[in-house]
Amino acid sequence: MALTHFDGDGNAHMVDVSDKPATAREARATGWVRMTPETLDMITDGRAKKGDALGVARLAGIMGAKRTSDLIPLCHPLPVTKVALDLAPDPELPGIRVTATVKTSGQTGVEMEALTAVSTACLTIYDMVKAVQKDMEIGGIHLTFKDGGKSGRFEAQP
Amino acid sequence: MALTHFDGDGNAHMVDVSDKPATAREARATGWVRMTPETLDMITDGRAKKGDALGVARLAGIMGAKRTSDLIPLCHPLPVTKVALDLAPDPELPGIRVTATVKTSGQTGVEMEALTAVSTACLTIYDMVKAVQKDMEIGGIHLTFKDGGKSGRFEAQP
Amino acid sequence: MALTHFDGDGNAHMVDVSDKPATAREARATGWVRMTPETLDMITDGRAKKGDALGVARLAGIMGAKRTSDLIPLCHPLPVTKVALDLAPDPELPGIRVTATVKTSGQTGVEMEALTAVSTACLTIYDMVKAVQKDMEIGGIHLTFKDGGKSGRFEAQP
Amino acid sequence: MALTHFDGDGNAHMVDVSDKPATAREARATGWVRMTPETLDMITDGRAKKGDALGVARLAGIMGAKRTSDLIPLCHPLPVTKVALDLAPDPELPGIRVTATVKTSGQTGVEMEALTAVSTACLTIYDMVKAVQKDMEIGGIHLTFKDGGKSGRFEAQP
Amino acid sequence: MALTHFDGDGNAHMVDVSDKPATAREARATGWVRMTPETLDMITDGRAKKGDALGVARLAGIMGAKRTSDLIPLCHPLPVTKVALDLAPDPELPGIRVTATVKTSGQTGVEMEALTAVSTACLTIYDMVKAVQKDMEIGGIHLTFKDGGKSGRFEAQP
Amino acid sequence: MALTHFDGDGNAHMVDVSDKPATAREARATGWVRMTPETLDMITDGRAKKGDALGVARLAGIMGAKRTSDLIPLCHPLPVTKVALDLAPDPELPGIRVTATVKTSGQTGVEMEALTAVSTACLTIYDMVKAVQKDMEIGGIHLTFKDGGKSGRFEAQP
Repeated sequence: MALTHFDGDGNAHMVDVSDKPATAREARATGWVRMTPETLDMITDGRAKKGDALGVARLAGIMGAKRTSDLIPLCHPLPVTKVALDLAPDPELPGIRVTATVKTSGQTGVEMEALTAVSTACLTIYDMVKAVQKDMEIGGIHLTFKDGGKSGRFEAQP
Repeated sequence: MALTHFDGDGNAHMVDVSDKPATAREARATGWVRMTPETLDMITDGRAKKGDALGVARLAGIMGAKRTSDLIPLCHPLPVTKVALDLAPDPELPGIRVTATVKTSGQTGVEMEALTAVSTACLTIYDMVKAVQKDMEIGGIHLTFKDGGKSGRFEAQP
Repeated sequence: MALTHFDGDGNAHMVDVSDKPATAREARATGWVRMTPETLDMITDGRAKKGDALGVARLAGIMGAKRTSDLIPLCHPLPVTKVALDLAPDPELPGIRVTATVKTSGQTGVEMEALTAVSTACLTIYDMVKAVQKDMEIGGIHLTFKDGGKSGRFEAQP
Repeated sequence: MALTHFDGDGNAHMVDVSDKPATAREARATGWVRMTPETLDMITDGRAKKGDALGVARLAGIMGAKRTSDLIPLCHPLPVTKVALDLAPDPELPGIRVTATVKTSGQTGVEMEALTAVSTACLTIYDMVKAVQKDMEIGGIHLTFKDGGKSGRFEAQP
Repeated sequence: MALTHFDGDGNAHMVDVSDKPATAREARATGWVRMTPETLDMITDGRAKKGDALGVARLAGIMGAKRTSDLIPLCHPLPVTKVALDLAPDPELPGIRVTATVKTSGQTGVEMEALTAVSTACLTIYDMVKAVQKDMEIGGIHLTFKDGGKSGRFEAQP
Repeated sequence: MALTHFDGDGNAHMVDVSDKPATAREARATGWVRMTPETLDMITDGRAKKGDALGVARLAGIMGAKRTSDLIPLCHPLPVTKVALDLAPDPELPGIRVTATVKTSGQTGVEMEALTAVSTACLTIYDMVKAVQKDMEIGGIHLTFKDGGKSGRFEAQP
């Protein structure tokens, strides 16, 4: 079996989706940034009074979703019709959990848009907090839901 | 203590680095994409004959590093002077380990450029392989080395 | 009443337009750059022989319209089907009056595309003339016409 | 006298600044979005509980400043070293007043970056509020301060 | 007869295609980079063991196709549904021959996307080899095939 | 001998220029678009009264130069300090000859910026005229001059 993003000669190409019907597509992805409890406190305190770091990361994620096909070489450009991000402090982690939901009506799915939104939001959190902690970790980035298109519905543990 | 990316009123801003000297900066970051052994085989086999997925991801990471300040809202634009990515199959993971090294001479560091390169390369691997496996995970993204600037050298386990 | 660009928890999101039908959309916006009569003369003279500043600003406005969803965080990406700008010297102002007309067939309107085209053209005029006059003013930017979509037709004084 | 952005034959060009020294540059610009008192109330109420529209606009302005040379055709690319925006509700207007401050060390000034930041923030406010009021107006966009470079200091009424 | 990209007053505009039906579109373009036999050997040898220059150029061409409407001022944005590039060493030239095929379903054709893909791939080859040969030439860039839309099919010698 | 854009293992990378001094750099490139005499007449007539196609292409070239490192994967980002394009009708060709001059002070040269400016201007001419002639050809793109940096001066026939 061969990867679809490469033709018979092994050359990368943007897969031809011209003949696929435009259907309603939705994808959801998640991920997290792990940090010390002290760093997490700075972010959650700040939300109330010292600066809304989660608001900045949420916006970065929304804008990142719109740049997906610019960043991922073989990804089809798609006019997304919805992007929403949820960023929640999780003291168990400890850190921030990020979830992104993306929709479109198109010939390919929006999995990459959802994953790119999560990644960009996580990177933005890292950027805003790196002056106080450099050894944070970004992880757990995976698809939790996808619907629409020939391959149909996919669901995974958040 | 407050986050430096927010001013006294809690408003986000791009921190003033005008008075910092331009010094040699370097940063290294790492991360991975975890997949089944079968999926990993498809990528490593492909390298030889069916398509160089790692080559595509490497290039995406290099170009992603150059787009960092476009993606991360409060990140300073910096003319990077070197970007290199190493992508290695790891049967233990199993999956692909990604490492990025970025250099510049500038007034701020290139940690975000290195982390963005790693993230973009991981997302690109996911994109190329998602037709055969949807439950891959991207993780372990963290800074492993940084030098230059006032805060000096930082090193962490790869 | 709450702003539609924020969800029930007050978090910014890109509004879900997935279920809205794609209809013919049109929007027109206007604005101006005010300057001294001497500066205006330089631009209008130049048109004939020393350089077509209005032509440069027109092109910047057309390209700006195409970048709208990159610039405005919660704006949906839309493939515009027409962009036209009119730039007219107005000795009464004195200055340049800019009007932009944008069309698409889509699930949201093109008001932001028209307003972004006008703003970008005005900024470009400022850029080209700022060496001779720094106290120019950009103003009067507003929507003058919009049609299509559920909210229907809107008209205002140019 | 001819505009510097056009050569002797009237052709547009990006002015040669190769021989200008890199000096500390700063610029400040201002502008406003005028709306009804009811619309203004929605924004200011929202700040507390229903969504931080001013926070979104501030971020858009910061990112807009970084895109200036992409938008303004003859503008030199410059690595900005500081971008800050102030957005204040003004019941007298009524509306929102926007001020942007930009710094760099470079061969040309950052007036266009400051003006582009203000314009982008104003457009973003318009975008978020347009569902409740379509006849808002963006205006009063002008430079209030500039320093650095051969032409020296410039100051104007905010 | 007048050029369609200019209105009755000679002002550039993005042509109104709102009333054109969205049909299946395809375009193919070709071009080449001419170099010495020694330089060509370095590229073809490299493919096997020293670095896949053609793979890098192929990817640049695919990504360039997606940026077309950003680069060409009056070009309509179009969500492409397929991009493929073929890069073949030609000892007769001597050099590399580049062919790009692009598809979409839209209201305008994808000729510019195919030509931009070819140009970007050729420039990328030049970039990677310029350290060993500076007098390479890029040429022969033309459309070889186009179908779809009112003007119908066009074919030319590759 | 190996290509510098690939490391010892044949992996593409952005070459490390951190230790190169920033020196004054200049590059000049040229190219042409060949068309029928009738098509050329439409452009040159238009210049006077029906639309300045050469002015549009000139601006596209200037903006294209600023996007070079976005388009060419392994190209270093550089803040250009001058971009100028000359577009001249040549009845002998017949067609339009394009020349671009780019300057910077940096650690790498601006050859790619000059070549990208020429290519983008040629593509833009093609775009504006393609409704009347589809079999135009873009060619003769090559470097005619370069100075600065370790490899020193290079000159070639325009």
